[in-house]
Amino acid sequence: MTGVPANDAPYRMIDGVTFGDDVIVQSFVNLYGCRIGAGSRVGPFVEIQRGAEIGRRCKIQSHTFVCEGVEIGDDVFIGHNVVFINDKYPKTSGPWILQPTTVEDGAAVGSGAVLLGGVRIGANALVGAGAVVTADVSAGATVVGVPARARAGQGAGRCA
Amino acid sequence: MTGVPANDAPYRMIDGVTFGDDVIVQSFVNLYGCRIGAGSRVGPFVEIQRGAEIGRRCKIQSHTFVCEGVEIGDDVFIGHNVVFINDKYPKTSGPWILQPTTVEDGAAVGSGAVLLGGVRIGANALVGAGAVVTADVSAGATVVGVPARARAGQGAGRCA
Amino acid sequence: MTGVPANDAPYRMIDGVTFGDDVIVQSFVNLYGCRIGAGSRVGPFVEIQRGAEIGRRCKIQSHTFVCEGVEIGDDVFIGHNVVFINDKYPKTSGPWILQPTTVEDGAAVGSGAVLLGGVRIGANALVGAGAVVTADVSAGATVVGVPARARAGQGAGRCA
Repeated sequence: MTGVPANDAPYRMIDGVTFGDDVIVQSFVNLYGCRIGAGSRVGPFVEIQRGAEIGRRCKIQSHTFVCEGVEIGDDVFIGHNVVFINDKYPKTSGPWILQPTTVEDGAAVGSGAVLLGGVRIGANALVGAGAVVTADVSAGATVVGVPARARAGQGAGRCA
Repeated sequence: MTGVPANDAPYRMIDGVTFGDDVIVQSFVNLYGCRIGAGSRVGPFVEIQRGAEIGRRCKIQSHTFVCEGVEIGDDVFIGHNVVFINDKYPKTSGPWILQPTTVEDGAAVGSGAVLLGGVRIGANALVGAGAVVTADVSAGATVVGVPARARAGQGAGRCA
Repeated sequence: MTGVPANDAPYRMIDGVTFGDDVIVQSFVNLYGCRIGAGSRVGPFVEIQRGAEIGRRCKIQSHTFVCEGVEIGDDVFIGHNVVFINDKYPKTSGPWILQPTTVEDGAAVGSGAVLLGGVRIGANALVGAGAVVTADVSAGATVVGVPARARAGQGAGRCA
């Protein structure tokens, strides 16, 4: 465990992050108060907020936002421009209730997906590109669309 | 009124912006020729274009794009990765007609939403995460989906 | 042809890019190993990956991601927050098959659109804002929605 990634790159904001070994972090990131496991890679234009936890050997692709309350397992692929959410009734001030989200080991979230707060993405599940996930996704399932629904005949996931 | 935000942060492009008091602006922003009211907060990876107006005590979250022709009232929440649009027929050159958009006081726009040009989001309305807004949204209404439609039983908005 | 854009701007990562004449590139970009034709303009918070090719007089707007395997013709408009994809089964490691995407001359892709890998966007076609494109789009057609479908009565495209 260390407070810095394994590589150097200009234009990074990194504050109070716990890194495992061999974590690669590209330029133009805003990372603070989170944990990122060994061997993971973080693309440019990514924000990861305080309290978020990312496992080992994950890819967090460019333009993605990971908020407080998100827990991501090992070997998870998070595509480009993915948005996590942790608040059901967003507002500008006052109390709010954190909606935690879990992405289990081996899952993949396609680019442009939006994940509402409070959902669980099961192990090895695949969330299609551009999907808006409003409910839990079963392990190994493939979901697509707005709102995201299981795709017929693809229930075994991307490895079928 | 001042030409600088209330806080310091590295890696910011700020040119010709009029700030009210106590505006907080994070790193990695591109702001030019716009107005941002007192007490508002602007996240990282945000662009706000010339002529856009943002009221007081707003939150403009990370990765969001606010274009020319957008007027945002007071106490408005704009989530992460929200895209405003001001042109119906985008092209690379030549004349075009600005489609203005208004977001009234107290409204909230969920993360990942896309707002076509020329729409009005009424006071205290809620635009769901990932919605594509193609028409006006009534005050207090909740809209979701692609294209965005009012959600039954939620017409009173997010405080119901 | 040159290795630098026509303008200066701070906070840019540019590595091994071939630029035509008069290419304008804004701040906060990550461009590497790609080709960008004469007269094109690239907005802030844009990543363009190795092997991508962009024609002449294009606009690549803010927050957009152009991946390896994407070939964009001349006079193409790519809106804000557009995501290209080149892999059908994303995962964190191991072999994968590149799915190439072509955008033909004069096409326009609306802001917030997501384009699955392996699609062809025909000349002068218009992809609506927020669309998720899962199949080829005919020349001159307008497509909208998730998944993107041709819009009735608009088949002649945006100039009708």
